[in-house]
Amino acid sequence: MNYKVLEAEDIAALQQIVKDRERLLTGDAISEDYSHDELVGEQCFPDVVVKAISAQEIAEIMRYAWENHIPVTPRGAGTGLVGAAIPVESGILLDLSLMNQILELDEDNLSLTVEPGVLLMDVTAFVEERGLFYPPDPGEKTATIGGNISTNAGGMRAVKYGVTRDYVQGLEVVLPNGERIELGGKIVKNSSGYDLKDLIIGSEGTLGIVTKAILKLLPLPAKTISLLIPFPSLEQAIGTVPRIIREKSTPTAIEFLDRDVILDAEEYLGKKFPDNSSSAYLLLRFDGPSTADIEREYDEVARICLEEGALDVLISDTAERDESIWNARGSFLQAIKSANASLVEIDAVVPRSRVNDLVSYMHAVQEETDTRIKCFGHAGDGNLHIYVLKETQDEPDWDRKAEAAMAKIYQYAKELDGQVSGEHGIGYDKRAYLNESLSAVVLDLMRGVKKAFDPRNILNPSKIL
Amino acid sequence: MNYKVLEAEDIAALQQIVKDRERLLTGDAISEDYSHDELVGEQCFPDVVVKAISAQEIAEIMRYAWENHIPVTPRGAGTGLVGAAIPVESGILLDLSLMNQILELDEDNLSLTVEPGVLLMDVTAFVEERGLFYPPDPGEKTATIGGNISTNAGGMRAVKYGVTRDYVQGLEVVLPNGERIELGGKIVKNSSGYDLKDLIIGSEGTLGIVTKAILKLLPLPAKTISLLIPFPSLEQAIGTVPRIIREKSTPTAIEFLDRDVILDAEEYLGKKFPDNSSSAYLLLRFDGPSTADIEREYDEVARICLEEGALDVLISDTAERDESIWNARGSFLQAIKSANASLVEIDAVVPRSRVNDLVSYMHAVQEETDTRIKCFGHAGDGNLHIYVLKETQDEPDWDRKAEAAMAKIYQYAKELDGQVSGEHGIGYDKRAYLNESLSAVVLDLMRGVKKAFDPRNILNPSKIL
Repeated sequence: MNYKVLEAEDIAALQQIVKDRERLLTGDAISEDYSHDELVGEQCFPDVVVKAISAQEIAEIMRYAWENHIPVTPRGAGTGLVGAAIPVESGILLDLSLMNQILELDEDNLSLTVEPGVLLMDVTAFVEERGLFYPPDPGEKTATIGGNISTNAGGMRAVKYGVTRDYVQGLEVVLPNGERIELGGKIVKNSSGYDLKDLIIGSEGTLGIVTKAILKLLPLPAKTISLLIPFPSLEQAIGTVPRIIREKSTPTAIEFLDRDVILDAEEYLGKKFPDNSSSAYLLLRFDGPSTADIEREYDEVARICLEEGALDVLISDTAERDESIWNARGSFLQAIKSANASLVEIDAVVPRSRVNDLVSYMHAVQEETDTRIKCFGHAGDGNLHIYVLKETQDEPDWDRKAEAAMAKIYQYAKELDGQVSGEHGIGYDKRAYLNESLSAVVLDLMRGVKKAFDPRNILNPSKIL
Repeated sequence: MNYKVLEAEDIAALQQIVKDRERLLTGDAISEDYSHDELVGEQCFPDVVVKAISAQEIAEIMRYAWENHIPVTPRGAGTGLVGAAIPVESGILLDLSLMNQILELDEDNLSLTVEPGVLLMDVTAFVEERGLFYPPDPGEKTATIGGNISTNAGGMRAVKYGVTRDYVQGLEVVLPNGERIELGGKIVKNSSGYDLKDLIIGSEGTLGIVTKAILKLLPLPAKTISLLIPFPSLEQAIGTVPRIIREKSTPTAIEFLDRDVILDAEEYLGKKFPDNSSSAYLLLRFDGPSTADIEREYDEVARICLEEGALDVLISDTAERDESIWNARGSFLQAIKSANASLVEIDAVVPRSRVNDLVSYMHAVQEETDTRIKCFGHAGDGNLHIYVLKETQDEPDWDRKAEAAMAKIYQYAKELDGQVSGEHGIGYDKRAYLNESLSAVVLDLMRGVKKAFDPRNILNPSKIL
């Protein structure tokens, strides 16, 4: 698609909209950060960066871009893993990080209204201080809420609480043509026409720009306890999960940990993990109104794990110990990144009973393609994070081998009735895999949806589809 | 829109697809039932009824309809309240009620795969026998799951558990052109392209025909207890709800009951309600792993209610008593219908802190428009069912007055940041109100979505938009 190349008059027109000079950047004033997100190896500079401060301003910028056929890429904290925030067609990069106000806590309706640039960690801290709970819990706490909405971020607590989509009740959105709309609201039910709110969620900034979100809160569970359970093998650890589910336990989180990854995390954090003597672990978390309630539940799960061959059950019931375990878990991606020269990532999701199939297959692919692969992930919700590693910079033929490994793993995830992405999204990087995974008919429907929202294809073009 | 009028050759062609003669009905063989749903006063006969038995058959019928520009209206049990299943453009009525098999219970993934014609009551019974739980709980238990999905049905348990959309993980859908697609699956997370699954849910059979659904289950709570709490006034009853929420209790359900409606239900069922001496009640339900757990929670709520002026707290902790209370609650609509010559219904949803505003306004509208209005509903989720009543057949000028009352109430619900429908949908009957409620830009986006799925506008035309 041929977009207008920005000229001095366009910059001047945008500067008219954005009054403050320091919120519009061009040329050398655009820092390298704006040319990429956390996707390894892709980079592209925008022609101009606008640090927006209001929906009104964004609407005016979009109207200008729409009329002049200029591509616009929205960006939060730049923590995305699939390149959704890379301005691959250049044009305008819309930085939303200054729109970082918590606008309203409504305790009668248990809702929190926020601007898109508020960080997840700030939302969490704000509500937890008040005895309230925003359940989505992606590992990356410095992501913005807008970014979490754009990818429908998942995280650790999805087993019991679901994902970001389940906690967004209403949105204010600026459309590609600059029109402003509201979808949903502080309401618990809604059957009033097509569900455009949930279509915007997970659309990675390609259908509209979220300028305000109404989040649903829950009362904060009074007590949380974690169990770290060593197993003789990863297969036994993961194989225990369907039985936990079948016996009707509902942990908040069920993660699986591989010894290799724990060692990487110890190295990265410079801190010992509570235990690293076993080759694999399940890490479970339970929450509830009291210790007694949780104990009843985890006793049962501990019994199941021991029956299935667990070597021990380590209980973490102090906040300090809990934090150290979960911080280590939260650092896995950074730990793997820092231990290797480069990597490519797979974020596939499969039915939770098929996680073992995918992990075994991954080990086979490692042999077949002569690559090194590590993984960790959400055993309780079937979402795996798999990394094909470039251990040293000069590994010969790595790109080709990594690509072969990726293609095989995605293909197998599809055979297991899985999907390409559980929580990171498609962005720029996973388009080919989405294309392989979904039917031509479904992809055409998605194109039709994009066209209904953005017939000029100016908003975050070359993403998802 | 000009559709093809069915001729003998079309019927013959459809009979070719539908082998069994008894599953294709024409002329007098089409019973009066097929001309309407539970919307009062609207009726229209189709040219042909097909009682489909497979997705393959539906795909072939849709392909024929698509090529020949014949309108198709899908129908479940016909329990809808807004005319979504009325074949207003005639053509083919696709009866899905024979596709009523529960296909698979997958306990490792806590999912149930069903055909669309399975009744809600059959799903509930099937899973509860196995210690599992399908939380959505609309009053109408003889509705089909396909119908529940098409309206995104809500029900009583939405306060704690959410609505139908929250429990549909995957769908198989036949598109207007006869193509078959699958969306989602037995997966807990999904960020793989636009969320078409949630777009189909709540689309009232206008975007595609659901031929299979994968439902998400939970473990069945071991214990349920209800509280019936009399108040001196409806205002006090409803006014207590935001405080219950604010103090971080999470009942499964919070309903408000008006004495007038209780008397209608007693008359209709020929059975006494446990108490009818007060002018208003809150009815709450709690569930949890044990009686002790629930007691701790409801003690706190009982205390709040008494502080707010409740006259008593009646505890229903036997299955028998519980059933009698909730059956009475479940019969309210039928009771009101049977006590009056006719009625029109409003299913608005507002933020739960604004329910009292809407109910007070409703009482004012009653005076202003010289109408009789009754209401009941879900105080805990802000979804009200409001009925403008034609008490006797010969009430003069009723249509005009009822319409005036409806328009005022919808307008006010909008001012309260509410929406037209909390759970019944828009269908044929509420289109004008949706049109008033949403912005022109949002309605245009919805038209764009419809066009992406059904550019020939043959699937359930003249509905929603």
